[in-house]
Amino acid sequence: MDTAADVDLAVVGGGFAGLQAGLTAVQAGRSVAILEARDRLGGRTKPGRLAGHVVDLGGQWVGPDHRRLLALAARHGVATERQFEAGAKLIEFAGKVRRYTGLIPALPTVALLEVDRTMKRIERMAAALAASAPWATQNAARLDGMTVASWLATQVRTKGARAMMEIAVRAVFSAEPSEISMLFFLAYLRASGGLEPLISVGGGAQQDRFKGGLHQLSACLAEEVGNGRIRLSTVVSAVEQDESGVTLRLSGGDTLRARRVVMAVPLALLGRIGSTPPWPALRAGLAQRSPMGSVIKCHVAYPTPFWRARGLSGEAVSDAGPFSPVFDGTPEGAAHGVLTGFIEGEAARQLTELSPEGRQEQVLRCLTRLFGPEAAIPLDYAENDWLAEEWSGGCYAGLMAPATMTGFGPVIRQPAGRIHFAGTESAIEATGYVEGALESGERAAAEALAALSLG
Amino acid sequence: MDTAADVDLAVVGGGFAGLQAGLTAVQAGRSVAILEARDRLGGRTKPGRLAGHVVDLGGQWVGPDHRRLLALAARHGVATERQFEAGAKLIEFAGKVRRYTGLIPALPTVALLEVDRTMKRIERMAAALAASAPWATQNAARLDGMTVASWLATQVRTKGARAMMEIAVRAVFSAEPSEISMLFFLAYLRASGGLEPLISVGGGAQQDRFKGGLHQLSACLAEEVGNGRIRLSTVVSAVEQDESGVTLRLSGGDTLRARRVVMAVPLALLGRIGSTPPWPALRAGLAQRSPMGSVIKCHVAYPTPFWRARGLSGEAVSDAGPFSPVFDGTPEGAAHGVLTGFIEGEAARQLTELSPEGRQEQVLRCLTRLFGPEAAIPLDYAENDWLAEEWSGGCYAGLMAPATMTGFGPVIRQPAGRIHFAGTESAIEATGYVEGALESGERAAAEALAALSLG
Repeated sequence: MDTAADVDLAVVGGGFAGLQAGLTAVQAGRSVAILEARDRLGGRTKPGRLAGHVVDLGGQWVGPDHRRLLALAARHGVATERQFEAGAKLIEFAGKVRRYTGLIPALPTVALLEVDRTMKRIERMAAALAASAPWATQNAARLDGMTVASWLATQVRTKGARAMMEIAVRAVFSAEPSEISMLFFLAYLRASGGLEPLISVGGGAQQDRFKGGLHQLSACLAEEVGNGRIRLSTVVSAVEQDESGVTLRLSGGDTLRARRVVMAVPLALLGRIGSTPPWPALRAGLAQRSPMGSVIKCHVAYPTPFWRARGLSGEAVSDAGPFSPVFDGTPEGAAHGVLTGFIEGEAARQLTELSPEGRQEQVLRCLTRLFGPEAAIPLDYAENDWLAEEWSGGCYAGLMAPATMTGFGPVIRQPAGRIHFAGTESAIEATGYVEGALESGERAAAEALAALSLG
Repeated sequence: MDTAADVDLAVVGGGFAGLQAGLTAVQAGRSVAILEARDRLGGRTKPGRLAGHVVDLGGQWVGPDHRRLLALAARHGVATERQFEAGAKLIEFAGKVRRYTGLIPALPTVALLEVDRTMKRIERMAAALAASAPWATQNAARLDGMTVASWLATQVRTKGARAMMEIAVRAVFSAEPSEISMLFFLAYLRASGGLEPLISVGGGAQQDRFKGGLHQLSACLAEEVGNGRIRLSTVVSAVEQDESGVTLRLSGGDTLRARRVVMAVPLALLGRIGSTPPWPALRAGLAQRSPMGSVIKCHVAYPTPFWRARGLSGEAVSDAGPFSPVFDGTPEGAAHGVLTGFIEGEAARQLTELSPEGRQEQVLRCLTRLFGPEAAIPLDYAENDWLAEEWSGGCYAGLMAPATMTGFGPVIRQPAGRIHFAGTESAIEATGYVEGALESGERAAAEALAALSLG
C-alpha cells in the first residue's frame, strides 16, 4: 500500500461516467480526486441559450429504462417533461414530403412490409447476442466482417426500406451505415433492448427531457461528490504506474499520486494520455479503432410552435438532409416554439467546414421544405458542432468499424494494472447513453474499490 | 514573419519522412530542428542482432521502383543484395503442405483459375483509380462501403482462391480482409502499381535488401541533415499556433519556436499531440480512423540454410499460421541460414499477449510443419512486436476501415495553418513503404518552403 498517495482514487474525466465513479468511491469512504480537462463538467452534455431559455446542446433525452439517471434527477428534484409527439410526423423521401403516424413512415406498401420484416429480423439478431460478450456469439466473425451498408445491400431490396434503415442508423449512431460493423450495430441495439426503443419517443430513449436540461445533472452529481474533490481545466498528460501506485502528470507541471485510477474519457482520446508502462497493445489498438460519431446539434426557435396548429408533432426525417431527425423542442409552458434536430454522419463532415451562419442557412432550407415557409424565419438559433469539441472528439459515442469488436472488444473492460476503464462505450446496458455512462462509472469504481480493500 | 523563431522549420518525428523533410529544408538553406520521441531514429525500421549479424526488425526490403531510397543508399555506398528466391515455395493449405513455383501456389485447377481471374480483376479495378484522389473515383462510395472480406465473400467462390486472397491481404497490410475498406485496398495497390508488385520478390517490393540493413539508412539521412539539428528522446506534447509562428511544447518543460512545422508521425498518433487551435475536425477525425496494422516480425537462425539443399527457396505461406509469409533471410556470404517472417493481423493480436518465448515456440511449430523437423532446433531467434511499440502503434502502416477514405481521405495532405503533414500514409506513390515516407517528406517540406518564401 502506498501510504504517500494523495488520494485512493483519481478519476480522469468529469463527464457522467467519471463523476459517478468518483461518487461511488466517496460513498465507500475513499479519498477521491476528479480531473477534468475542460473548464466545465458534463462531458457530452452542455448547456446553451435559445430565446431566453436554457437548452441542451448535447445529451438531452431520458428513456423509461434509464433508472440510474432518473434516480439522480429524483434525488435533486429535477422534474422530467414528456417529449411532445401529438400529431402527424413528416418524412421527406425521394423529393416529396409526406405525413404519417406511428413508428414507420408512409412508404409504398412493398417497402413498408420490408421495413417491418427487416426491423423484426434485426431485433431477433440483436436479441440473440450476449450483451456482455457480443464478440463470443456464433457468427460473430461473419457479422463483424461486414458493414451495416453491406448487410443492407444484400438483405433489403426496396429503395424505401433501405432509406428508412439508413435514416435510423444515422439517428442512432450519427454515422453512415458504411462506417460501422454489423456486429457492433446489433450489440449496440442489444444493450438498449432493440432498435425500436432506440428510435421511439413514448416508451423509448426519447420519451422524456429534463426541465432545465440534462446537463444540469452533472452539477448535481458533482455536488454529491463534493466540488472540492474536482479540478477543472486540468489536463492529465501522462500516467506512470509503479509497484505501489500511479503518478498522474497534470498540466502546469503538477503531479498527483493515487493508489488506483479510473479512466473515464472516450476511447478515442486515450491516445492523448501517455502511459508508463505503455498502454497494453490491445488497449492501444482499441483506442486507435474507436472513432466518435459525427454530429452537429441545432435548435431553432420560432415565435410559436406553428406546426402544432397544423396537426404536426414537429417530428420529421429526411433522406435529403442535412437536418434529420427533427423533434419538437419547445419547453413546457413556453410561448415560443422550438425545433431541435441533428446534422449527422457525412452531412456533419461536410457542414463542419461551414460557419454557424452557413449551417443555419442549410438547416432553415431543410426545415422550410419540411414545415413550409414559416420555418424560414426563426426567432433564434443555437448549435453545437461536436466534431470541433477537442475533449469529446465527436458524439454521441465511440463507434466500431468491422473487425474491431471481435479483435479488440474483449479488452474494453479489462484493467491495465491499477487503471480501470469507465465510459459509456464500456457499459453493458444503455451503451452510448448517459445511463450507460453512470453504469460504467459504478462498475469501474467497484473494481477499484475491491482492489483497494485488498491493500 | 516571426523574427524571434528558433528555426524556420520544426519537424516532429525522426523516421524517414521526417528526416527527408528536414533534409529538403536544410538543402534549401533553412534552419531546421527535428524532434524525435524515441532514443533512436528510423521510425518503423530498427536494428536487431541475430547469430552475430545485424538484422532489420522492421522495414527491410526495397523494390526496383523505390528510386528515392535506392538513391539514398547509393549516396552512402550502401549496397543491396538480392532476396534469395531460387527453388520451390511452400504453401500450407487445408492441413497439407505443398511445393509450388511461380507467383500463384499449387491449388486445385478451379481455384487456380479463380485466383488468376480475381487478381486480374483487382489489378483492373486498382488501375482505374486516380492515385492522388481515389475518393473521387466513380463507385468510390460503394467500394468504400464494404470491407475486402465482403467483396471476397460475394466475388470469390472457391475456398482456395479465397484463402490465397486472404493470405495476400495479410501479407501486404498486416490486417485481416475484414479490417479494411475495398476502396482503401485498391488505392494502396494503385500507389505501388498493383497487387503483383506488392507480393512479388523479383521485380517487386521484396526484390532487394540492404547489406547491413535498411535501418542504417536513417543514420545516413541524419548525417546529411546534420546530427546537431536532431533531438532524440524529445516528446512534443503540444503545438500552439499564432499569427507569426508555432510554439512546440517539449518534454521536460522546454519549448521551441518555429515558423512552420512538418508533422511526420503516424496518423493514429496525432491525437497524442495537443493543438491550439484544436486540430481541424476532419484531421482529428482522420486520426481517430487510421489504426495501424498488427504485426510481429521474427527472424529464426539455423546452423545452415538447410532448405536450399532440398531445392526450397525458403518462401512459404500458410492458411493455418501463425507465421506467414516466410522468406529466406540469410545474409549474403553467411554460413548460417535465416528464415524471416511475420505474425500478422488477428494472429498478431493473439500472440502479442504471449512472452517472446511463447511466440518463439509457436513460430517454430509452424516452421516445422512447413520445413520439417530441422526447423525445430534454431541457432538463434530475434523478434519485434510492433503492436507494443508506443511511438509506432503498430506496423506496417495506417489502415482505413470502410467510409474513412471517402469521408476523411481528402484532408490527408491538407495543412492545418502553419502545420504540414508528412508520413508514408500521405504518399501518392509507394504508400506504406519507406519510399512513400521519403516522397511525403519531400512534398511536405516543399509546401513549407513555399510558404516560408512568402515570408
